[in-house]
This record gives sequence, C-alpha cells and structure tokens, in this order.
Amino acid sequence: MSPAQARERFRAGERVPTAGWCRGWAQANLIAVPKGLRYDLLLFAHHNPQACPVLDVGEPGAWSTALFAGDLRTDLPGYRLYHDGVPVADLGEVVAEWRADLVPFLIGCSFTFERALLAAGVPVRHLELGVNVPMYVTSVPCATAGSLSGPLVVSMRPVPEELVKTAVEVSGRYPLVHGAPVHVGAPEAIGIRDLARPDFGDPVEVRAGEVPLFWACGVTPQAAIMASGIEYAIGHLPGHMAIMDARDDDYLVT
Amino acid sequence: MSPAQARERFRAGERVPTAGWCRGWAQANLIAVPKGLRYDLLLFAHHNPQACPVLDVGEPGAWSTALFAGDLRTDLPGYRLYHDGVPVADLGEVVAEWRADLVPFLIGCSFTFERALLAAGVPVRHLELGVNVPMYVTSVPCATAGSLSGPLVVSMRPVPEELVKTAVEVSGRYPLVHGAPVHVGAPEAIGIRDLARPDFGDPVEVRAGEVPLFWACGVTPQAAIMASGIEYAIGHLPGHMAIMDARDDDYLVT
Repeated sequence: MSPAQARERFRAGERVPTAGWCRGWAQANLIAVPKGLRYDLLLFAHHNPQACPVLDVGEPGAWSTALFAGDLRTDLPGYRLYHDGVPVADLGEVVAEWRADLVPFLIGCSFTFERALLAAGVPVRHLELGVNVPMYVTSVPCATAGSLSGPLVVSMRPVPEELVKTAVEVSGRYPLVHGAPVHVGAPEAIGIRDLARPDFGDPVEVRAGEVPLFWACGVTPQAAIMASGIEYAIGHLPGHMAIMDARDDDYLVT
Repeated sequence: MSPAQARERFRAGERVPTAGWCRGWAQANLIAVPKGLRYDLLLFAHHNPQACPVLDVGEPGAWSTALFAGDLRTDLPGYRLYHDGVPVADLGEVVAEWRADLVPFLIGCSFTFERALLAAGVPVRHLELGVNVPMYVTSVPCATAGSLSGPLVVSMRPVPEELVKTAVEVSGRYPLVHGAPVHVGAPEAIGIRDLARPDFGDPVEVRAGEVPLFWACGVTPQAAIMASGIEYAIGHLPGHMAIMDARDDDYLVT
C-alpha cells in the first residue's frame, strides 16, 4: 500500500495503529504547537535529538509539508488534543482544531526501522500480535528548552537474548528515527514500574529468554506538552502515525 | 593555554585569528540575532547541519552559555556588526552593541579538528604560515528557512594528494564541527573563481601535488544575514573564534 492510499483510508475514518503499514515508507510523530512556542519546541528537539529527531517542519497554519503530501488534519488515523497541558480529546480528524497559528513538526518514529529488524531476523512482538507498541513515561528527564521540559518516553520491544546485539546494531543504523535503544534490560532502572501497564499503546509479553529493549520515542514532545502545561497543542494519537512520502531507507546511515 | 587565559588576552585587546590556539579545546563561530529571528536561524541551522552545527544557544541578552563561561561581548578577538545585512563595522568588543534581545548561537568550527589532522600527519598550511584560514562564498545555495537564505561558505586547506583520504577520514570523525569536506578538487565546481582571493581570511598557496579540500564553514550564517538583509546581527570576525569550554574530542565520533 502506498502512503497516499493509507492516508485515504485514515481520512475515510479507519482508526488503527500504523506499525507494519506501508512497509518501506517512513512514519512520523506529529506535534503541532502555536507559533509562539515553535522556537522552544525546535530547541527542545535540538537538545534531545535521540527522542525528537525533526524530519520536517511546516509553516504556521500549513497542513502539509515537503515530506508529507497529505492533509495533516485528516490523514492520520488518530489525534490527541491538549488544552493547558491536559489531553482533552482523542479525535479522528482535527480540521476545526487546526488553528491558523499552529506549526506542525514531524518527528522520526521507530516503526521506520522495524522492516530492517524483521529482515535481520529480529521478531517484533507487537507486529506479530497486531497491536500497538507499548510506550512508557520514564524517570529520565529531557534537557529543558525555554518553557518546555518533561520526561523521556520510550517504546519497548522484547528481543531474544541472542538477538539483542543484532537489534542494537540494526536500529543504530537509523539514527534519525531514534537509532539504537536508550536502555537494555531492567525497566526499573529508567523508572518503569510495570511493563504490563504501558502509558500509551498496548502491553506485550516479555517471554523467558527475552530482554526488553527500550527506544527513545517521538511521543516525548507530548509528554513535555503535558509536563509544561502548554496552552494548546495537537499530537498524533500514540502509535497512530503520519505515513510520510519518504522511504525508510532515506534514514539509513551506512 | 587554557580557554580562560586566551579569552583574557582577547578581552585585553589582542586581535588575532585563533587557528592553533588552545590546542585540545573546541572553537566556535558566533552569530547573535534578534529574538524575532531566532526560530528562523535555528531552523536554518537544522536544514543546513553540515555548515551550521549548533553547539550551544544562549537566552536573549545573555553573554555566556553552558559551554562558554566567558563574556561573548568581549572575549572573542574580533567581531563583525551587521545593519540591514550590511557589515558596517569590525570591532574588538561589542558591549554597547549587545542588545537585550540578541540571542547568541555558537556554531561548530573546523579549527576543532585541526589537531587531529596534524596528529594524522596531514599538514595544515595556514597553521604553518601563521595566517588566517582562507574562506570562500560558493555558488551552492543553502536550504532556506523563513526569512533566511544564502550561499554555503567553505574553508579551504591544501592537502597532498596521498593524504586526501586521511584528511577526509579524520575530519569525518568530527561531524559536529563540519565533518568531512563538502568538496575535493576543482574550485570552479562550487563557484570559486580565484583561490588567491578568498572572501574571508588569508590566501594560502596550493602547491604542485596538492589538492584543495573544502569544508563547510560556520561563517555561512553570516552570509545568510547578508543575503537576506537582516536588520541587525553580530558575528565573530571570520577566523577569530570563540574558544569554548569544551574539548575538541567532545565532538569526536568513533
């Protein structure tokens, strides 16, 4: 399926996590903030590059960008609306909410390297199960930028012990879509109390002989919106990504 | 000499290019712009990362940053003041010119990897001669960001043919201070007509058996200030850098 075809389905109302969709095409996190916050957000991304790799930025009020030819207000399968840092609604489209001063940022997503993980023989549990990837708010603070601060958010994939090295190496070749894991092993070391209760997405089992691997996650800006009480923002619904007009291999560094 | 000692000499009035100073410590380009332009500048840097790697950013009106403990208004050996995109004065200090809304950006400088070039046996002509590095405005356009556009600026070092590979590899290990050359060989391919007449700095001879290597240069933001007719800005005098409280090896990627 092409990015345009997937976006058409989401525009028509399909509401589904996008892991595994449009294999070969990059996916991205959306965070749209008022123009007055755009410097702080870009600086936050600069200070926290592993969590917030900026793939593309739009003009104020724009709903498409160089790398996303669709309509950012309708062509993602889910959105989350924030008022004063509080998520007030999950929506299927945000046409009425897309204020003229909103600046959209598209942030790299680890779904982009999952095809490479599979090709290297690393199984991806949430793909096998057809569920959303589990995501967790950690105790690791991000670097502050102006009015924006907050904790690092991570995604988790259980990997068989003998494939941990491969998973680290393969994902490490995609530094602009989070790269190598930020943490391997003990969840409590980064403040995650219960793997069975992710903050976003669905839980997946970590089986005997498997190690949980944690990757920096592009939901991190939304955690900063919440932690910082930002007046107004629109994000994607976690796991429900923007499917980009860029190839996943565009982000492969060899 | 420590960065603090060098800065004290510059504050006392010494006006000299900084290549070779404080071996082991990083150097940086300064560009300070009014607060209203800071988003465009940060986005310009994001879009042109090889020319404009941001090492540090200050708050509006600040004259020191996390990585520069000195006084940005006095502790560089030279400054260039711009009005409406026109360089109107070269100054030894800019205390009176440092408006309260100026946001200072410190951008990586290729002087930072010259110690590594020497250690690898690559001679550096401007160091041998004790002159400023030659810099050229090219015909290569940078990616535009809002009100900022302009040409890529490069620095040039002549390298013996048999050492070109080494120079590329060694500088490539320092991606945050411009990394590998953007061009090797024919100057006219990037719009440089006469190597003997650099746009900034001093000319150096390219001898028989040597190849000119061109690295992206942190004077590029100043070229964008000029090309874009920006109302007010302060840069360093090209080649007269900020000596940072960061080690050159902090920017080494292995």
